[in-house]
Amino acid sequence: MRRLEECTVVIVGLGLMGGSLAAALRGQCRRVVGVDSTEEAVGAAVADGVVDRATQVLEEGLREADVVVLAAPVRSIVRLVAEVGALAGEGCLVMDVGSTKADVVAAMESLPAHVEPLGGHPMCGKEVSGPGTADAALYRGATFLLTPLARTSPAALALGCEIADAVGARPLVVDAPRHDALVATLSHLPYLLACGLVATADATTSADPAAWELVAGGFRDTSRVAGSDVTMWLDIVATNRGQVLHAVGTFRAELERLAWMIEAGDEVALRAALEGIRARRREMFP
Amino acid sequence: MRRLEECTVVIVGLGLMGGSLAAALRGQCRRVVGVDSTEEAVGAAVADGVVDRATQVLEEGLREADVVVLAAPVRSIVRLVAEVGALAGEGCLVMDVGSTKADVVAAMESLPAHVEPLGGHPMCGKEVSGPGTADAALYRGATFLLTPLARTSPAALALGCEIADAVGARPLVVDAPRHDALVATLSHLPYLLACGLVATADATTSADPAAWELVAGGFRDTSRVAGSDVTMWLDIVATNRGQVLHAVGTFRAELERLAWMIEAGDEVALRAALEGIRARRREMFP
Repeated sequence: MRRLEECTVVIVGLGLMGGSLAAALRGQCRRVVGVDSTEEAVGAAVADGVVDRATQVLEEGLREADVVVLAAPVRSIVRLVAEVGALAGEGCLVMDVGSTKADVVAAMESLPAHVEPLGGHPMCGKEVSGPGTADAALYRGATFLLTPLARTSPAALALGCEIADAVGARPLVVDAPRHDALVATLSHLPYLLACGLVATADATTSADPAAWELVAGGFRDTSRVAGSDVTMWLDIVATNRGQVLHAVGTFRAELERLAWMIEAGDEVALRAALEGIRARRREMFP
Repeated sequence: MRRLEECTVVIVGLGLMGGSLAAALRGQCRRVVGVDSTEEAVGAAVADGVVDRATQVLEEGLREADVVVLAAPVRSIVRLVAEVGALAGEGCLVMDVGSTKADVVAAMESLPAHVEPLGGHPMCGKEVSGPGTADAALYRGATFLLTPLARTSPAALALGCEIADAVGARPLVVDAPRHDALVATLSHLPYLLACGLVATADATTSADPAAWELVAGGFRDTSRVAGSDVTMWLDIVATNRGQVLHAVGTFRAELERLAWMIEAGDEVALRAALEGIRARRREMFP
């Protein structure tokens, strides 16, 4: 397996995640090639200088690929894995940046033996998406989760780690089921809470013009992720349904517990619960 | 009623909200006097130069007061209203910066006739509290809600608006019941969701050391307010219980609706719901 600096890296999907990865990798590898099904995305990537070249034709893009990174909503990645497998050359590393890992890793099991598979998920994002949103700093400081398969070689995993390092992220190896359980609580649940909060405001207060003037920092922060790309989220909940519903169920019980203490006026229990939560939050983000 | 520049403003409570108000008003009125029950807070306010003078003795602080601002958790404000009423001079404006307004305004109804009452609630805050946390920029750009009583004179309301303007905030007049209904959804509910989210993470993932490395921006933002002062929040939920529980109930129904669509795999309905929410969020914070 080559070192990153000798590799031609092909990024399939030039939206926020793929475009930003291209921008961050350019100059750190032999060449960055972009592939996207839309002319707009290909044009933006070339115009913004985030790739060395770009094409709408997958077969053309994959020529000479040492690394292929699939950057699309999860179910699109699953479909792309099969297509890429039929085109990738000997020893090519096929990885992805999808938000859930069980379905992607399952699809990667069927890749031909001469290809090296590796699941990936960088824990970063923004409430913008699509062509022209590339940001070379997006991955900086983020944890880049890597989910190797049993067949993934140590050299392939090392190259995955090198890519994470090159874009300023911290690689962290976890297996796919553990990954999906963790992100259900730490990423997918926050999204659904943000959506539920906006829907609640819509149902209760948004008819009052004053509501729009007084939404303060707490609401803004708690609802922020509700502004992110819906197609990406539909794929996430569809491919992690059991874990997401489990996280929602646990949350519901925790909220009920707090609401019950408020209703009962049990301030001793409520203070103990809220102080414990506050201490935990401060431990998470010192 | 005097103009602000001629007023001695006495701020009772020198924590985050009171200390920051003092810092922002200093130099824009005749004198800022701080009162706090603890020696530490009085010492910090003097040392940080956020007040012209400070004292632990309410009676001493209120001498020559043209404006008194009560800056404490809501139930402390309710207790202070009676004490201040017995000490404040002719024409003194008594206002507050408490987070709920029904109980404060009810207490202010009992103030002597020679005092001018005005409820207030600036929509800003931080996850720090206590002495030494004053920040002169805290109120800048925030909406400063004012809840006048039937007995509040136009001149007193105008002085309240002048104070809000002076600290860089936008005054907005609403009545107390409408205020409490709005903040239940737009401020108190986000706090409880943030707390429920942290409690859920604690119950499901925090035993996994990887969880601490992958908590990304979505979780950080959605849980931020769970780090704020518990005593303040206990007073908020105790003095706005009905509205808070109503907001929790509406939220619960909205979350159930989303969870049901996920469970049923009804992607058409889920996409429509999430796209509507996303558009609403973008309308709220363009």
